[in-house]
Amino acid sequence: MRIHIRNTTILTMNQEEAPFIGDIMIHNDRIEHIIPKDEQAINPTILELMNHDSVQEIDGTNMVTMPGLINAHQHTPMNLLKGFSDDLKLMDWLEKKMFPAEARMTPEDMYWGSKLSMAEMIRSGTTAFADMYMHMNQIAQAVDEVGMRASLTRGLVFQEDDQGARIREAIELVENWHGQADGRITTMFGPHAPYTCPPDSLREVIKLAEHYQLPIHIHLAETKEEVVTIREHYGQTPTQYLYELGLFEQLHVMLAHSVHLTKRDIQYLKGMRGGVIHNPVSNLKLGCGIAPVTEMMQQGITVGLGTDGAGSATTLDMFQEIKAATWLQKLDHGDPTVLPAYQSLQMATIESAKLLAIDHETGTLEVGKKADMILIDLNRPHLQPVHHIVSLLAYSANGADVDTTIVNGKILMQHRQLLTLDEQEVIHEGNRRAKRIIEGI
Amino acid sequence: MRIHIRNTTILTMNQEEAPFIGDIMIHNDRIEHIIPKDEQAINPTILELMNHDSVQEIDGTNMVTMPGLINAHQHTPMNLLKGFSDDLKLMDWLEKKMFPAEARMTPEDMYWGSKLSMAEMIRSGTTAFADMYMHMNQIAQAVDEVGMRASLTRGLVFQEDDQGARIREAIELVENWHGQADGRITTMFGPHAPYTCPPDSLREVIKLAEHYQLPIHIHLAETKEEVVTIREHYGQTPTQYLYELGLFEQLHVMLAHSVHLTKRDIQYLKGMRGGVIHNPVSNLKLGCGIAPVTEMMQQGITVGLGTDGAGSATTLDMFQEIKAATWLQKLDHGDPTVLPAYQSLQMATIESAKLLAIDHETGTLEVGKKADMILIDLNRPHLQPVHHIVSLLAYSANGADVDTTIVNGKILMQHRQLLTLDEQEVIHEGNRRAKRIIEGI
Repeated sequence: MRIHIRNTTILTMNQEEAPFIGDIMIHNDRIEHIIPKDEQAINPTILELMNHDSVQEIDGTNMVTMPGLINAHQHTPMNLLKGFSDDLKLMDWLEKKMFPAEARMTPEDMYWGSKLSMAEMIRSGTTAFADMYMHMNQIAQAVDEVGMRASLTRGLVFQEDDQGARIREAIELVENWHGQADGRITTMFGPHAPYTCPPDSLREVIKLAEHYQLPIHIHLAETKEEVVTIREHYGQTPTQYLYELGLFEQLHVMLAHSVHLTKRDIQYLKGMRGGVIHNPVSNLKLGCGIAPVTEMMQQGITVGLGTDGAGSATTLDMFQEIKAATWLQKLDHGDPTVLPAYQSLQMATIESAKLLAIDHETGTLEVGKKADMILIDLNRPHLQPVHHIVSLLAYSANGADVDTTIVNGKILMQHRQLLTLDEQEVIHEGNRRAKRIIEGI
Repeated sequence: MRIHIRNTTILTMNQEEAPFIGDIMIHNDRIEHIIPKDEQAINPTILELMNHDSVQEIDGTNMVTMPGLINAHQHTPMNLLKGFSDDLKLMDWLEKKMFPAEARMTPEDMYWGSKLSMAEMIRSGTTAFADMYMHMNQIAQAVDEVGMRASLTRGLVFQEDDQGARIREAIELVENWHGQADGRITTMFGPHAPYTCPPDSLREVIKLAEHYQLPIHIHLAETKEEVVTIREHYGQTPTQYLYELGLFEQLHVMLAHSVHLTKRDIQYLKGMRGGVIHNPVSNLKLGCGIAPVTEMMQQGITVGLGTDGAGSATTLDMFQEIKAATWLQKLDHGDPTVLPAYQSLQMATIESAKLLAIDHETGTLEVGKKADMILIDLNRPHLQPVHHIVSLLAYSANGADVDTTIVNGKILMQHRQLLTLDEQEVIHEGNRRAKRIIEGI
């Protein structure tokens, strides 16, 4: 099975390579050839491949083909709760709205909520995501069916004695799903946050992660309140708390949010494996603050991008996060040169891939890597004139400009039609279930 | 000529009225009836109208019909310069890129650049805008042809002796175009900014505005540097400088940006006619800062929304400005309850209409007002489930969700097809001219 994308503007996101016109050949799940236009005539093997009948053709004229976007922090089923509790104080939102609603969600609700998120993600150019939630078996099932790439994590809170139930589910997820769905699914361990994980529990999860040789996905320092709470309990910053427990010594760790870090906290993270997931829209909408993204990058810390759950961010459009990320750094430093366009696109592609520990397989367009890519249609007034492709993608494009989404060599959307899920069914089920879940809350 | 919008969710934006299902009847350029679903059967006159053959039907099922968005601060021809000079220091951007490029722009370039902006605006749900630029005759011509509503202003800088040429052009614009294009075009006077308008020149413009009984559109306190400059020259803040010249005494004045205001500055504006245009995306992207929107509103100052020119903001999508406006206030106050969804939608509709002094004609859906409205298609994964329409519009929708745009009773876009301009021609001309303009800059 081969797909031939013809005459497209290729933005590889590989080591600041400039966009060029050319063709891409996909063979099964991998990128087989990337051929600049002016080199096509001199390669007879490629020419023969291109003219072969069995190859599916995609016309990439007036389109940019770039790596699929990677949403490194999500809670996919929360899409059912989108927009029903905006403009509330964070604790009111969480305790009066999200927790009661989540308590009502059945495994089937998780499945359909997750599929609704995937419909939105595919439509806005996301090819891979990291998910931390519960009933992960249903989410894994949905990922398997829909065809996206995902890093799945059972969220672990240790505020009540659940007789080890959550830990068991976390292990089952790892044992049942890691490497499944043609390798599209990977897993991590997910201790929820410093304020929901006491030291002994965190040590237990660290041991598990070491045993299974898997990364950890955890929230860190999202709010000022968290900093106060952890200081009251442990006399430390949340980052220091994790550092002292040895989290940053060996393991690959993804830290979501990391808004409230001191200079010393950033030093604790220096040299860590993994890195930080920046969620600018969620941080803005909940009034949390601006993460020190530039300062972390200056210390060599990998910073990727995520939306957070749609319950808070209310949109899963990674193009919005790209804009918000660069805007916030420019604002914070009073300097429009900070976090330029190319760097913000890197955060949403190769840097997020590094966080998910899948950068050897995806995050850039390179021969031999998995075929995860999107085609963006430039033939629209808001993406014209074309002076700088990278600027247009970072500052002017939005998710609705994505024409085609390909994951693992399979086309999940073409000409804005979803091919691996029934959009109307997902919308219908999502609405029906959402109404039941929030009734009276 | 009548248009009948059937079975739509109507959000009037009139005095916090909740959305309801119903029909809208447009007669020529005005809203003739707004009929909630449950009242239709009892009104025989309306029923007869609805069933009349000559009525054009629009099916509004699964769509929200709301007032068109009003972009209160724009420089439409700058769309030709979008994305060619991002991530630069403000003064480098302005002096090394914008000024040399603008100097090369011909009247015909203005016409096509303006049309490119209008294509983008109509596609993203904007029905009216305020424009400050040069060669306004060409822009007025484009507005007349395309069918949008616009408030046009010749930008006036007084840094060199132009023998009164700019002032003459400003007067010609007013005399030739005010009230033209079926009343869709209004005009203002546009002294550019405190730092480009010395006191005597400003006094002259104030006299002109008083003579013609027209509003003033001016930039104010966009950057910290402006505050320093005005203090050096006049020992005052930029706001105080305008206040002392009497700008806020009688005239209706639109103040673009107004980022750097002191508490006392806000007191100077209290009670003014007109108000402030907030441009959050431009302010973010240029690293200017956060305008004290909440504080101004608390003092009863009208605050509307605009994108600024696409040269800086790089997008004319007002849904983006709506999000950015509420995000920035939540961030600035560390409080997610600040500037809630409905209020941010008001800024983009009725509040901007007040700034343009057209709120008696547009900005809300009311019987007798001009028929300026948009239909937003909710049948998309990112706008489902539907818990709160207002939240979805403010936080999840984007310009690409607009299905239909109507101005002055005329359909400018239906099912995302532009009906009053040739999109491919505009894109072609825009590109061709843009390449010539920026060559070597």
